[in-house]
Amino acid sequence: MTDSIKYLLDERRIPSTWYNLVADLPTPPPPVLHPGTLKPVGPDDLAPLFPMALILQEVTGAREVEIPRPVRDIYRQWRPSPLFRARRLERVLETPARIYYKYEGVSPAGSHKPNTAVAQAFYNKEAGTKRITTETGAGQWGSALAYAGALFGIEVQVFMVRVSYQQKPYRRALMETYGARCTPSPSSETQSGRAILAQQADHPGSLGIAISEAVEVAASRDDTKYALGSVLNHVLLHQTVIGQEAMAQMEMADDSPDILVGCTGGGSNFSGLVFPFLGSQLRRGKKYRIVAVEPAACPSLTRGKYAYDFGDTGHLTPLTKMHTLGSTFIPPGFHAGGLRYHGMAPLVSHLKELGLIEAVAYHQTACFEAGVTFARAEGIVPAPEANHAVKGAIDEALRCKRDGVSRAILFNLCGHGHFDMQAYADYFSGRLVDQPYDEQALAAALSALPAVA
Amino acid sequence: MTDSIKYLLDERRIPSTWYNLVADLPTPPPPVLHPGTLKPVGPDDLAPLFPMALILQEVTGAREVEIPRPVRDIYRQWRPSPLFRARRLERVLETPARIYYKYEGVSPAGSHKPNTAVAQAFYNKEAGTKRITTETGAGQWGSALAYAGALFGIEVQVFMVRVSYQQKPYRRALMETYGARCTPSPSSETQSGRAILAQQADHPGSLGIAISEAVEVAASRDDTKYALGSVLNHVLLHQTVIGQEAMAQMEMADDSPDILVGCTGGGSNFSGLVFPFLGSQLRRGKKYRIVAVEPAACPSLTRGKYAYDFGDTGHLTPLTKMHTLGSTFIPPGFHAGGLRYHGMAPLVSHLKELGLIEAVAYHQTACFEAGVTFARAEGIVPAPEANHAVKGAIDEALRCKRDGVSRAILFNLCGHGHFDMQAYADYFSGRLVDQPYDEQALAAALSALPAVA
Repeated sequence: MTDSIKYLLDERRIPSTWYNLVADLPTPPPPVLHPGTLKPVGPDDLAPLFPMALILQEVTGAREVEIPRPVRDIYRQWRPSPLFRARRLERVLETPARIYYKYEGVSPAGSHKPNTAVAQAFYNKEAGTKRITTETGAGQWGSALAYAGALFGIEVQVFMVRVSYQQKPYRRALMETYGARCTPSPSSETQSGRAILAQQADHPGSLGIAISEAVEVAASRDDTKYALGSVLNHVLLHQTVIGQEAMAQMEMADDSPDILVGCTGGGSNFSGLVFPFLGSQLRRGKKYRIVAVEPAACPSLTRGKYAYDFGDTGHLTPLTKMHTLGSTFIPPGFHAGGLRYHGMAPLVSHLKELGLIEAVAYHQTACFEAGVTFARAEGIVPAPEANHAVKGAIDEALRCKRDGVSRAILFNLCGHGHFDMQAYADYFSGRLVDQPYDEQALAAALSALPAVA
Repeated sequence: MTDSIKYLLDERRIPSTWYNLVADLPTPPPPVLHPGTLKPVGPDDLAPLFPMALILQEVTGAREVEIPRPVRDIYRQWRPSPLFRARRLERVLETPARIYYKYEGVSPAGSHKPNTAVAQAFYNKEAGTKRITTETGAGQWGSALAYAGALFGIEVQVFMVRVSYQQKPYRRALMETYGARCTPSPSSETQSGRAILAQQADHPGSLGIAISEAVEVAASRDDTKYALGSVLNHVLLHQTVIGQEAMAQMEMADDSPDILVGCTGGGSNFSGLVFPFLGSQLRRGKKYRIVAVEPAACPSLTRGKYAYDFGDTGHLTPLTKMHTLGSTFIPPGFHAGGLRYHGMAPLVSHLKELGLIEAVAYHQTACFEAGVTFARAEGIVPAPEANHAVKGAIDEALRCKRDGVSRAILFNLCGHGHFDMQAYADYFSGRLVDQPYDEQALAAALSALPAVA
């Protein structure tokens, strides 16, 4: 019996640059607009929120951005991450497909998020930032930034969606172990929080509200900046270490993917895997089928509108053109909290419009079923978010079986599920159900989109 | 600033043999006795419980035991595990000591336990075993065996101490995700379980009771064997991949440890790290200071008696000579459930008697304090068990600082704390306290030890 195979790069092969897809696109994504003037924002508009080095990365057209030495030194704690050929899973599925996965759960915070958290903490440290604010839903991003803050000696304040703060004490304990301060949102520490609490004292919170609070605190203090864990160009840029390593590892395996699969919430782990492959395609390389898998309960790519919208509920952010369900849309509660965002990264949305990627949506019970199949075959328990990618990859493998063709499928296993075992317990006990979103609420949220000519 | 450094071996350097310390000891450990005849047990006495290959490993005098190819193939999923120089921790402590740690939390189950679980599942598969029973307290061992059982297609039944079954639904969910069946112990499925339940219907269970149940089920069915996660010689043998890799990695670092530190419950992770170093010492190599760190609430090495005792409460196991608190001793509840066992591995006990190792005991709050210091410096959150080793290593480093000497300290970080965040939450909220054991109960348990001349 041939076992599953690990492809591991020597650490000298951690990429020395991040890859910027914008340099290879046929057309650039639409500009980010100031919500008051509806004119493109300039670097100075963003300066209250981000250190200038990150703002410049947000708008750069350079194909390669050098990874600073201290960031690479920290990447070495878990990078290069392994890439596996899932032979045991192939046998269970009886598929002729060759299934590969890149595994980002080996990072200290258990997901791909530290790839950008470490970079953002580094540039903030360089700029003299004393404190970083952010928001978190399920807690993956918050714990990654808490980890990075601890390494650089930067204070981290995480506005955590109140319902998660109450229901997920373990992610909160992880952030506190790293020394971060968790504040349940909406809170009385901000204008935006107090406004919500005045209307509803027991408001459960949302990611959009938590973003407003974190942005407000950062904007009001000189020594404090804001950090976002997905959506923005510079965040996606930092994640491209994943795909660059994967390209080298597929060469080690003497194979090449035909189909690339990633789950999408804000879009960062998906982009991290696929941008380097897509860049090579755009520079006249092999053409890939690229599939974004999103939750059917929060389907921005498959059911959202491609339009300018705010990133937060309090409308403190600039306007970006993206696939959005509307900044006032509140998706139903489901376990992949990291995919519960109303919008999609502008770059990923742009790729969808250009026809360079496909998107598909699945309900959560089907994703957990796929995740359990994967865990029993490969021995790794995926995060609920990653289960969407597993489901997408398994469905492609079963299609290969039906069609009697062998294709190489590569997906991103963006994180482990160690902090999400309640979701698995719910799945096994039958308490995990598929909740559709409210069609009327979606229609209302879409009709309330800001008017931009 | 020089960052912490990872030393990673090429996977061709996964050891090809396990190292058997018995071959290098000046005197062998005392024999295991049959509780009825008080004569040494032979392989046939153990055949109802274990496949013959493991029984032969239990008693072999060979210095090296070959690791079967399929076991090495699975080890490759996470091995060689990394060894780190903890430079950031050194800076925080302002110590002249050089602190190294071997990190076993990279395995799919998050601890060192799969090193032996995979081997035991392999030999059982070869012997035609259909089902393996075992016990688990905190759940680290149960989830490791569940993982290994899934890979080899062997059914796994885990008797889980009832209070843990109720309080730790996440470890249970992990075992079930891997396809294992968890049974709260005491259960009505066994004679031993029913006898306990008849006395006390809501009995919270104990590791000793769960062992009795697992042994009873295995002994009563031809297609079913039993597996133990620590204590026995063959289990310790399988763990020596840790120390063998660490020796090669210390060479990569161009350094050599002066002090070796590991936490001890049954003794397996400690043995895995130190046996290969100790073997080289016994073959006239460098002399190491070797420190076993145990919980002050269950201090078998520092407060137990070196005597023949049963491994379980129901007295179904053979008698082994070990440091024991008495098989009827129930330690107070504390968070390092993996260290909550009344006895110590016979080989480790023998080393203590030979003066080859030292032992020290710490209360849990001091260990959590050390664990949080470590997490903020190095970015990895240790399991509560591993916090004992962290505390031991930090104390040695602080002694170096006081004495103004530089020593190389190597400790085993045997697992991550992702499934133990409730313990950290309790620590931060002040609910985690140090519970001393009951002195009278200890005296009673020690006076009830079996009489062996």
